[in-house]
Amino acid sequence: MNTQQRAIHGTKLILIVSAFWLGVLGATLLLPTAQAQADPLPSWNDGAAKARIVAFVQAVTQPGGADFVAPADRIAVFDNDGTLWSEQPMYFQLAFAIDRAKAMMATNQQLASQPALQAAAAGDMKALAATGQKGLLELLAATHAGITSDEFARLVRDWVNTARHPTLNRRYTELTFKPMRELLDYLRANGFSTWIVSGGGVEFMRVVAEELYGVPPHQVIGSSIKTRYEVRDGKPVIVRLPEIDFIDDKAGKPIAIQKFIGKRPIAAFGNSDGDFEMLEWTTSAPGARLGVIVRHDDAMREFAYDRESHVGRLARGLDEGPTRGWTIVSMKNDWRRVYSGR
Amino acid sequence: MNTQQRAIHGTKLILIVSAFWLGVLGATLLLPTAQAQADPLPSWNDGAAKARIVAFVQAVTQPGGADFVAPADRIAVFDNDGTLWSEQPMYFQLAFAIDRAKAMMATNQQLASQPALQAAAAGDMKALAATGQKGLLELLAATHAGITSDEFARLVRDWVNTARHPTLNRRYTELTFKPMRELLDYLRANGFSTWIVSGGGVEFMRVVAEELYGVPPHQVIGSSIKTRYEVRDGKPVIVRLPEIDFIDDKAGKPIAIQKFIGKRPIAAFGNSDGDFEMLEWTTSAPGARLGVIVRHDDAMREFAYDRESHVGRLARGLDEGPTRGWTIVSMKNDWRRVYSGR
Repeated sequence: MNTQQRAIHGTKLILIVSAFWLGVLGATLLLPTAQAQADPLPSWNDGAAKARIVAFVQAVTQPGGADFVAPADRIAVFDNDGTLWSEQPMYFQLAFAIDRAKAMMATNQQLASQPALQAAAAGDMKALAATGQKGLLELLAATHAGITSDEFARLVRDWVNTARHPTLNRRYTELTFKPMRELLDYLRANGFSTWIVSGGGVEFMRVVAEELYGVPPHQVIGSSIKTRYEVRDGKPVIVRLPEIDFIDDKAGKPIAIQKFIGKRPIAAFGNSDGDFEMLEWTTSAPGARLGVIVRHDDAMREFAYDRESHVGRLARGLDEGPTRGWTIVSMKNDWRRVYSGR
Repeated sequence: MNTQQRAIHGTKLILIVSAFWLGVLGATLLLPTAQAQADPLPSWNDGAAKARIVAFVQAVTQPGGADFVAPADRIAVFDNDGTLWSEQPMYFQLAFAIDRAKAMMATNQQLASQPALQAAAAGDMKALAATGQKGLLELLAATHAGITSDEFARLVRDWVNTARHPTLNRRYTELTFKPMRELLDYLRANGFSTWIVSGGGVEFMRVVAEELYGVPPHQVIGSSIKTRYEVRDGKPVIVRLPEIDFIDDKAGKPIAIQKFIGKRPIAAFGNSDGDFEMLEWTTSAPGARLGVIVRHDDAMREFAYDRESHVGRLARGLDEGPTRGWTIVSMKNDWRRVYSGR
């Protein structure tokens, strides 16, 4: 090769090398930019709710901006039942308890002496309700305790993979809200950590939270029962006890946030008055804050309920939310699509 | 320019561009490799303990290896007092309580009616010990409760920035163990999440854990007192109550791990029998597991104590640890250097 040929050959080699590295860089650097420019919330209709959410995210992620928040402090908390998936006609965890009561009763007739279990196994919701709080705790103890944490997780996993919603006839895992899943992804793509703070049982939710919402177990906070550490035949286990440890609802939510996260969130998403204190705690600190309430006003595609509902009652949030600067999302008007499932 | 000049000019431009991108890549891709090849644990003497730790990390991070563990499951838990920093002649948090009792007594003489506070303020450890558990709870209630979480964090921060260890005459923040801080960094550089699981108060430790250990608040698990959510003049606060919520010691440690992390760790580091169950829980699952006990046998550079000590008693761990495959680290022989401070 002469000088010119060598130079051209060298150029070619370098071009190939450059192209390769640029490809690598493109994959790692350029793609996220392109994604950020596409609509990150395609299941949301354009409107005030979506605009408010996007404006908030842009404000807290704008370097040098007045409202900039460091990624470590971009903490977003989400209620689960009614906020990330449906909660009607009953909490999905109650459906699990009822199905489990049926299964237990089938192999152990002695359990029929417990009125709550009897009612649950018979699917008699009126009789179950009549057993009151005592009955519900009995049902919880029988179906959620007395086994190890590992065994309980297996039971929940098996149930979730087979059970179907009583009126919608779909797997429960298909009943998560598509717009909220997009929101979780959108926040994480913008450096947020996303947490579930729910009245539901923590060991119940953790089984599905990673797969459904991309939320790892340690970022799922919920109600809990007490447990005991035990060594059985040299093998340690954690046993679930029939005793309430913590109810993660109402004022319990900010308490749990402080206990588990140790920082105050900057964004909170709920749907009922059980989330009021969580939104209050989140939005009453200085700096940019986002409080969002999902309103169930879509009887056609989901359910419509608020002030008079026994499940997911929403009254104070509707009355005070707007004056507190919270955004009320109308499922009917703000969501192009409701469910994640087909 | 003729063709040859153009080719050479092009080559030069591409070389510059390539050099730039390679520089970027070097900063992002090549440097970690170089770091991994340097000794990640320079404050550890070469020996069985260091070799065991490094072999474990290599085994669980080797793609395709028999012991490979996905990053999300690379969970390492650390005790704090006696494992990450000193705990003699008393837990640092007790020193905080005593200093705070002194400060409170100086402005409120009525507190002298409480024997434990009186003893603490006088620095009379014998009299304080004589008040028993009731007295210690009184001291805890007076110095740790009755204020908001935010106020408490401020008090701890102020104390940590000014107080000095009674015999070593150093800031407490200089009394973290350099080899353990290197270990935390080393594990994180290998995709681990690092957690503190300590008998110490969670809101006390969180104030220093991020700065000292690189462990964010939500990865600090500890003992806790109950709290109450309250709205004062329209402003919500979390108030610390004089009532024990949870003691994160002994069997409480695996219980807290399950509650806060929701996954079983693969590596655990402790120094006393209070860590026994945490190491047992961690190391008795299948797959590669690492259990490490730091033994305080260095009276010259730190302190020497084990079976007979009231603080950080270590007996069962010494007896059973080796047969359980746990590594006993000798501070005297395995550590080239002890403290992080000058």
